[in-house]
Amino acid sequence: MPSLEFFRLKTREEVLALYSRFAAVGVEDLDLADAVGRVVAQGIAAGEDVPSFLRASMDGYAVRAGDTFGATPGLPQYLEIRGSVPMGKAPEGVVTPGEAWRIATGGMLPGGADAVVMVEYTNETPDGTLEVRRPVAPGDNVMHPGEDVRAKDPLFPAGRRLRSQDIGLLAALGVARVKVHLKPRVAVLSSGDEIVPLTTKPPPGKVRDANAFLVAAQVREGGGIPILKGIVPDDQEALRAVLAEALIEADLVLISGGSSVGARDLTLKAIEDLPGAEILVHGVAIRPGKPTILADIGGKPLLGLPGHPASAAVVMHVLGQILLQRLAGLSGEKSPWGGTVPALLSRNLAGASGREDFVRVRLRHEKDTLWAEPVLGPSGLISPMVKSNGLVVIPLGVEGLFREDPVIVHLFSG
Amino acid sequence: MPSLEFFRLKTREEVLALYSRFAAVGVEDLDLADAVGRVVAQGIAAGEDVPSFLRASMDGYAVRAGDTFGATPGLPQYLEIRGSVPMGKAPEGVVTPGEAWRIATGGMLPGGADAVVMVEYTNETPDGTLEVRRPVAPGDNVMHPGEDVRAKDPLFPAGRRLRSQDIGLLAALGVARVKVHLKPRVAVLSSGDEIVPLTTKPPPGKVRDANAFLVAAQVREGGGIPILKGIVPDDQEALRAVLAEALIEADLVLISGGSSVGARDLTLKAIEDLPGAEILVHGVAIRPGKPTILADIGGKPLLGLPGHPASAAVVMHVLGQILLQRLAGLSGEKSPWGGTVPALLSRNLAGASGREDFVRVRLRHEKDTLWAEPVLGPSGLISPMVKSNGLVVIPLGVEGLFREDPVIVHLFSG
Repeated sequence: MPSLEFFRLKTREEVLALYSRFAAVGVEDLDLADAVGRVVAQGIAAGEDVPSFLRASMDGYAVRAGDTFGATPGLPQYLEIRGSVPMGKAPEGVVTPGEAWRIATGGMLPGGADAVVMVEYTNETPDGTLEVRRPVAPGDNVMHPGEDVRAKDPLFPAGRRLRSQDIGLLAALGVARVKVHLKPRVAVLSSGDEIVPLTTKPPPGKVRDANAFLVAAQVREGGGIPILKGIVPDDQEALRAVLAEALIEADLVLISGGSSVGARDLTLKAIEDLPGAEILVHGVAIRPGKPTILADIGGKPLLGLPGHPASAAVVMHVLGQILLQRLAGLSGEKSPWGGTVPALLSRNLAGASGREDFVRVRLRHEKDTLWAEPVLGPSGLISPMVKSNGLVVIPLGVEGLFREDPVIVHLFSG
Repeated sequence: MPSLEFFRLKTREEVLALYSRFAAVGVEDLDLADAVGRVVAQGIAAGEDVPSFLRASMDGYAVRAGDTFGATPGLPQYLEIRGSVPMGKAPEGVVTPGEAWRIATGGMLPGGADAVVMVEYTNETPDGTLEVRRPVAPGDNVMHPGEDVRAKDPLFPAGRRLRSQDIGLLAALGVARVKVHLKPRVAVLSSGDEIVPLTTKPPPGKVRDANAFLVAAQVREGGGIPILKGIVPDDQEALRAVLAEALIEADLVLISGGSSVGARDLTLKAIEDLPGAEILVHGVAIRPGKPTILADIGGKPLLGLPGHPASAAVVMHVLGQILLQRLAGLSGEKSPWGGTVPALLSRNLAGASGREDFVRVRLRHEKDTLWAEPVLGPSGLISPMVKSNGLVVIPLGVEGLFREDPVIVHLFSG
């Protein structure tokens, strides 16, 4: 007999709180050019100042700012042009009082100069005199050494996902390789006597293995590497053997274990038989997705997904992806502000008593209003998911939502 | 002398309208398991009905609905249990009036049955009689053939990006391979005598090639394949030769062409020298990003990016990514509702006169308010981008925005 604890559904928050027991996957040393989107495994600090020298940030003339004070269009200051800074080289010479050097954006300021006068506010006379019609203050139109980053500045902590601009900054610092977490390897398997492979024309009573493909695609969207382990018949020993094999190859095992009570019981027993197995969750207070299993098998997580495709997809969205992020070493959830959009609900909706309800919605713009239209349908169907843009949550304890209620839509990727 | 047209800045919308002249890249035939995130190249219709047979969507008993009419807890209806539907097989036999068959979720209904009574509302007596305490209507707790999709239903038009649920539906239909657009190949090159490779310690006056890495990472984020072509000196003939080579290999060429006026002029001349070159845009009314070039080189697009890293990044965000989507065959912009979040501006901001202004902002939650805090700094620096979560637009013709104005933040990916 399963213990009483098994009959108490866990809330989504309770399930998420259990993830801390699972460690992030290993680390690899990657070329910077391949590191965008990957998770930093070891904090990175700046090794040097950027820029490393005083640079012009505008085209113009390197000057001593004091020499331009008081300049106006009516009463310009006049400086002597003493040279041109060659791009990419240290200028030979210094700017002494009353002098100016031609300089292009990115050029290195000669010694003595502390500002750049923009070319727009100057005039060169044929005899090599520069007319300055506007004053500059020290530091105007230049980038100081260390202004972008200073040597030893902490840049990216472990757990940070690298974005394109982060890659740009690391390139500026000469960081050619970075230590990042591996992509988690995720075994995906389906059980059920009624399931046939994708390439088989199902005889009456059988259906193709849609769940494995759906779930494997979600794993890719979440930055993992799916390993399709195929279909296992509803046989406890066969299930146990395939699960044991999957746990060796993968960092996370996902099994969509049949939608009937009998098939789910079989899956649960097969999981319990694995060495070091601890069933952490058996049933979650969400709709769809109640018959979800989370187990710890000697330190590796195993997630048992409901058999209905829409239920499996929702469980992956609300529980699976966050587990994947945990394994990927990501600290905090990905894009805490991204992936949502505010909208108005297009019709009244009743919630699921005692469960957090995830309702598929399609978004529709009408004049200035964004409507979230519930796409209803049994969770055995896939097409309602295909017609939807995201999910709206009816929280636990809320009886329902009304037409025109403001809602937050959690967008599907893509 | 450049023509007068060159001096008129094009608006962002005018630039985007020019993209229609560029064709989408070629097509490949891909395994369904690899197709998530890819763009459909040829409309896909359903080849068969899903489900292909009448299925139970709940555990219970297959019945003729009429036999349950009037059933209540106080006055149940009694049916004779005549069999069990084996999972994954066509049941042998039919349900005649007064009969019921045990059936699990996903099982095939025997002939004669038109509904499933949920197990929760029944009782089996030891003599094989079923007590039904609630009536069902025909069609209750079943999935009809074709209820998910019908044969010949159009599913995904060309230009649609495949999401995980789309992959699931195609798997259910037995679509093992799909025709998708190739990922656009994007050559990335940097010019400038002041640029040294990432692995070189820059001598005074020189800087590392941060732009190429930043831009290549953006190409990856946008679903393209970057090809790093390295650094070209500020030499018109050398530039022309590398550009010509890049145009053979790639579907799009990106060059970040120096930040000084002189370097930009050189890049422009090198582009004009290419056979079949037509300069479409020279200057865009955006800040940062004004010195942007768009050219059509015998049907292939070339985008000249500003030399300042922040300017190049913004131009890639607001112009480059959409060009990449066009080449990738995507119809419409990616996630028209995604990637943005509403916030309140944390301080007054002046706009750029005559230009659309893209301001980097950092998001900060404070109680129930999400603040967008401008991260200011010259566009020669990278770290302000690193500290930011996205961009806020001050539209053309708007003088500025005020503290607490509601703004839409266009989020950076990651």
